[in-house]
Amino acid sequence: MKMDALLESQRIRAEIRAGRLTGTSRGLAHGFVQVNLAIMPKAHAFDFMLYCQRNQRACPVLEVLDAGDPVPRKLAPNADLRTDCARYSVFVDGEPQDDRTDITDLWRDDLVSFLIGSGITFDDAFERAGVPTEKDRWVLRTSQPTEPAGPFKGDLIVTMRWLTPQQAITATQVSARFPFNHGAPIHVGDPAGIGADTARPIFGGPVPELPTGKTALFWACGVTPQSAAEAARLPLFITHAAAHSFITDMRATSLITP
Amino acid sequence: MKMDALLESQRIRAEIRAGRLTGTSRGLAHGFVQVNLAIMPKAHAFDFMLYCQRNQRACPVLEVLDAGDPVPRKLAPNADLRTDCARYSVFVDGEPQDDRTDITDLWRDDLVSFLIGSGITFDDAFERAGVPTEKDRWVLRTSQPTEPAGPFKGDLIVTMRWLTPQQAITATQVSARFPFNHGAPIHVGDPAGIGADTARPIFGGPVPELPTGKTALFWACGVTPQSAAEAARLPLFITHAAAHSFITDMRATSLITP
Repeated sequence: MKMDALLESQRIRAEIRAGRLTGTSRGLAHGFVQVNLAIMPKAHAFDFMLYCQRNQRACPVLEVLDAGDPVPRKLAPNADLRTDCARYSVFVDGEPQDDRTDITDLWRDDLVSFLIGSGITFDDAFERAGVPTEKDRWVLRTSQPTEPAGPFKGDLIVTMRWLTPQQAITATQVSARFPFNHGAPIHVGDPAGIGADTARPIFGGPVPELPTGKTALFWACGVTPQSAAEAARLPLFITHAAAHSFITDMRATSLITP
Repeated sequence: MKMDALLESQRIRAEIRAGRLTGTSRGLAHGFVQVNLAIMPKAHAFDFMLYCQRNQRACPVLEVLDAGDPVPRKLAPNADLRTDCARYSVFVDGEPQDDRTDITDLWRDDLVSFLIGSGITFDDAFERAGVPTEKDRWVLRTSQPTEPAGPFKGDLIVTMRWLTPQQAITATQVSARFPFNHGAPIHVGDPAGIGADTARPIFGGPVPELPTGKTALFWACGVTPQSAAEAARLPLFITHAAAHSFITDMRATSLITP
């Protein structure tokens, strides 16, 4: 295949596989869907899938691979999940290990891989609709419990964005067009309404005072299932490192319909 | 609880549980979501859920219960799936057994129940939008393969409706508002385009010649996963009998957003 015949997503994954690109996936391959990874032994996969089904807004499962299969045949048919994510986090019995850029030596025939939609997917559509995505955005814990399944449980985690009233209305409409990728906001206004912990954000740095003329909007966030899987202390759990999502060949706009 | 405080769905389930109502669910509890049932041993539940995830348009899973649990806590919290469906079909090693009105004596602690969205759910919204639902409607096999998972595979099964051009446009828009319940049509026009077998309909009786001024529309149908589960010849598979769906307490309009 000639290089110029490749999609931008394929070119970037080739760089990642060759070890020449190890940084954040944010801003790369604009317009292609980026996904969160959750890789675990098959013994736990049914309960995890059940957890995702019961908490669909936070856990939009876009593809699940057969046990032992590292190839996302639907979202990126010539990729390999063992090498094509720039950085992986690994947990053994719930304990974080050193991050890796390759998980080939950890691979087992019983590992099931979940590809879960990420809020980053909205960014392209938001930008084209005039909704800024570069700043005023945080990932926060809330006090809203998710529906448990087997060992998977925990409070809902959300993405908070600060927008003008007009941007807020636009962002609500645009995100609602992605029902299989978090969809519309789950809350608007006072963070206390969902117990969102603005004092200790997971990502995004300290939260300053809300400026006059801005409104807070809250979307269910794909960190929710990742956090539940970490807390379940599985014998082995592998995920993308924060801000290092796996880049697929699927166009974000194609997620508007399944 | 006073009888007049019950939802219509709850009143009808009470009649079914008492054995006073054993006929079709079609036309009952208008506006409430009716679901297809798929009940199987946990050993097969992961592969079946994978099959549904991979064929989401045909297999919109609305709720999955923990193994052994017969109570759909989200869709009908005071129902019992062992008694509250008017008629059940039972398959042992793929062989159909006699239909039953109660499956209590077949119940086991390892049975996992799936509640899967049914196209009947559209009917109320279609009728209110001026799209007739009473006639010119068939369930057909196609030659489009579904994505397999474990032992589950087979061709896509569709619902075909004949509508006027204006009704077709309305029905497309209305059904598209239910992305978690089959969503928009998958095809319009010539049945041969998807290999739809109009010579041998599964339901709806013989298909006459298409009248002038009518267009055929095709929606992915919830009979698809049921057919795949039957063909997998599981040791035990229990489902609702055709046209005897389980009636939930969820309003059809609430399916517009998850």
